[in-house]
Amino acid sequence: MSLIVQKFGGSSVRDAQRVLNVARRVATVFDQGNKVVVVVSAQGDTTDDLIAKAMEINPKANKREMDVLLSSGEQISIALLAMALESMGYPAKSLTGWQAGFVTDSTHGNSRIRRVETERIENELDKGNIVIVAGFQGLNRYDDITTLGRGGSDTSAVAIAAACRADLCQIYTDVDGVYTADPRLVSGTRKLSEITYDEMLELASLGAQVLHNRSVEMAKKYNVPLEVLSSLEEKPGTVIKEVAKVEKMLIKGVAKDDEVTRISIIGVQDIPGIAFQIFSALAAKKVNVDIILQSVGRNETKDITFTVADSQREDALAVVEGLKGTLRAKGISCEGVTKVSVVGAGMESNYGVAAKMFEALSEASINIQMIATSEIKISVLIDREDGLRAMRVVHEAFFAT
Amino acid sequence: MSLIVQKFGGSSVRDAQRVLNVARRVATVFDQGNKVVVVVSAQGDTTDDLIAKAMEINPKANKREMDVLLSSGEQISIALLAMALESMGYPAKSLTGWQAGFVTDSTHGNSRIRRVETERIENELDKGNIVIVAGFQGLNRYDDITTLGRGGSDTSAVAIAAACRADLCQIYTDVDGVYTADPRLVSGTRKLSEITYDEMLELASLGAQVLHNRSVEMAKKYNVPLEVLSSLEEKPGTVIKEVAKVEKMLIKGVAKDDEVTRISIIGVQDIPGIAFQIFSALAAKKVNVDIILQSVGRNETKDITFTVADSQREDALAVVEGLKGTLRAKGISCEGVTKVSVVGAGMESNYGVAAKMFEALSEASINIQMIATSEIKISVLIDREDGLRAMRVVHEAFFAT
Repeated sequence: MSLIVQKFGGSSVRDAQRVLNVARRVATVFDQGNKVVVVVSAQGDTTDDLIAKAMEINPKANKREMDVLLSSGEQISIALLAMALESMGYPAKSLTGWQAGFVTDSTHGNSRIRRVETERIENELDKGNIVIVAGFQGLNRYDDITTLGRGGSDTSAVAIAAACRADLCQIYTDVDGVYTADPRLVSGTRKLSEITYDEMLELASLGAQVLHNRSVEMAKKYNVPLEVLSSLEEKPGTVIKEVAKVEKMLIKGVAKDDEVTRISIIGVQDIPGIAFQIFSALAAKKVNVDIILQSVGRNETKDITFTVADSQREDALAVVEGLKGTLRAKGISCEGVTKVSVVGAGMESNYGVAAKMFEALSEASINIQMIATSEIKISVLIDREDGLRAMRVVHEAFFAT
Repeated sequence: MSLIVQKFGGSSVRDAQRVLNVARRVATVFDQGNKVVVVVSAQGDTTDDLIAKAMEINPKANKREMDVLLSSGEQISIALLAMALESMGYPAKSLTGWQAGFVTDSTHGNSRIRRVETERIENELDKGNIVIVAGFQGLNRYDDITTLGRGGSDTSAVAIAAACRADLCQIYTDVDGVYTADPRLVSGTRKLSEITYDEMLELASLGAQVLHNRSVEMAKKYNVPLEVLSSLEEKPGTVIKEVAKVEKMLIKGVAKDDEVTRISIIGVQDIPGIAFQIFSALAAKKVNVDIILQSVGRNETKDITFTVADSQREDALAVVEGLKGTLRAKGISCEGVTKVSVVGAGMESNYGVAAKMFEALSEASINIQMIATSEIKISVLIDREDGLRAMRVVHEAFFAT
């Protein structure tokens, strides 16, 4: 008998029909002789509706109260899903975050899970129940309700799977797995049957948007096998684990991120400590820097270029403008660009990958502004208008059959 | 410094404007130097909307899951009211039923409060917070969410007032106090400034519909002064307490209940144990019997008549039909009637009250079918079509100026 944790997002339970559909999916896995814990999000637009209610009363609503408000959304979903399973004759019991034993830190609106006290979940499983748990929420040490922030329900599911040593954590979404590139943008993509945690982390952070990184990081830490699959169609998805089956594919996927800002500080003095000054000032303002490039010094000056998410552009520029005088910089430039990346655990030992990528871009007359590499990925920055075309030609180069 | 518990119903918080209005009422009492605990119900139609969601999925939904579902309604209200108070600069903290320490029995959908563990509420009050508590809900010994059933939020407020030894428990409603009769039906009614618990209990059970009996019974048990007042207008309401000021009024009010079914079992044998058979069978089916009348036996048979609420008519008839053979009854009759009652703690020592009531009905040519009296009330059963007129003439007889 295996223990399987399943997670269904808000669109999967947005109305009665969908809730009943999810119940059928859960029942199938239960009927196969498995113990099942199901994590659900708030229905469809519930969270947005609740936020609108709060805004009408207090646009600067206290985060503690926001958590009390928003956590009611999943409380509704869990009750409805339990009712749906019971209407089909299955024993089900719903548990809120605090009933399920989620202990978090006290950062309202964006809490971290400290631990899951699994006694209640395990008792209910031992009684033969399908356990339905409210995702996205927990309780802090003051007995106050907290929420986990973006990707919270995925993280809830992985945390339960880790704490209960589940055999598999299935994340049901509106896509049916992880593809070699976003199928809505690129033709000829292929679904991967397996992928490693690290590859998935790179793809997620590069804009593949299948799973939130927090949940993948936690799955990697506790070695929980994840499966991403469709909540609508019954077919296998993509399994994410420590070591993936070798599939004769060096490259697992091509990803594109359009929300990248490139900032250059031009003509700063070429003396030690300059980079430290810039990047510690950015860190102090909680700006996450992605790629960093420093030109080779000439005439005693150099250029320092880095990228941040578009959402942090203003914060980053404010820091850099503030340092301009101290650095005696000649100028600052800032541009919105696109990052296209290829990801694959095997590429570090194969120099042909970079060459193949650059060749494809060159043949399409796409200019590369910057290049960054890691053990499992190669990223290039290009003009935003070339983004989609770049993704397609690179995918074609690696995956054309 | 006094401690005041205030309770606001669902219509008082049905939209953002009303929530802000309630916040202003709470703030006024807080500004007068009082500690304040506020109990709120779910907004407007929220409970009905949630019930509809459940019905769509499972018309016979499990009561435990129904409680999980419905309790989310008050969780939304408490967060919104806390946000409203904070937007006005007041320190407020919301607590769900389980956070506020409500321990109930395990009857899902209609739980009884066992106790309120007031530590959390008192800590928050000591920190200077206005405490906002979700009414209608608690937690049983299995850590499952329960709801209190009809009138639950009133009962929650009284329970907190009792446990925290509050100086006053204010119940804000859509009427501004207790009247000598329902002002929507009778002209010339007067608002009472004070009334005893017992008088209020009789008026409530007779259809005055201002407060639910459970809350008044609890207030009486723990001697909590209650005040019923308007959530919309700022003026004093009616105070309900052990001994009310004497107001030269023998009679405190006239009430009417149209949902009464009179059932007669005709011509049963006049032997001992007949009444026991009938009423124990009714009790076994949880039928609440109100008035009972047994005719004097003649020709070795007698008639037994009793009343029940219309909602229990079918259950009561089923019991009686089942007994018909055993009782060798000649027939069963059943009719919907109206009960009109006068209530007042002083009437037991004043026989003039009954005479005055019967005289008024007689002058209006209204036939009395049955009469029942207690220490503080006289009730008559009459044809339903005479109900409103009867209430008016009786009220006129006692309260005409």
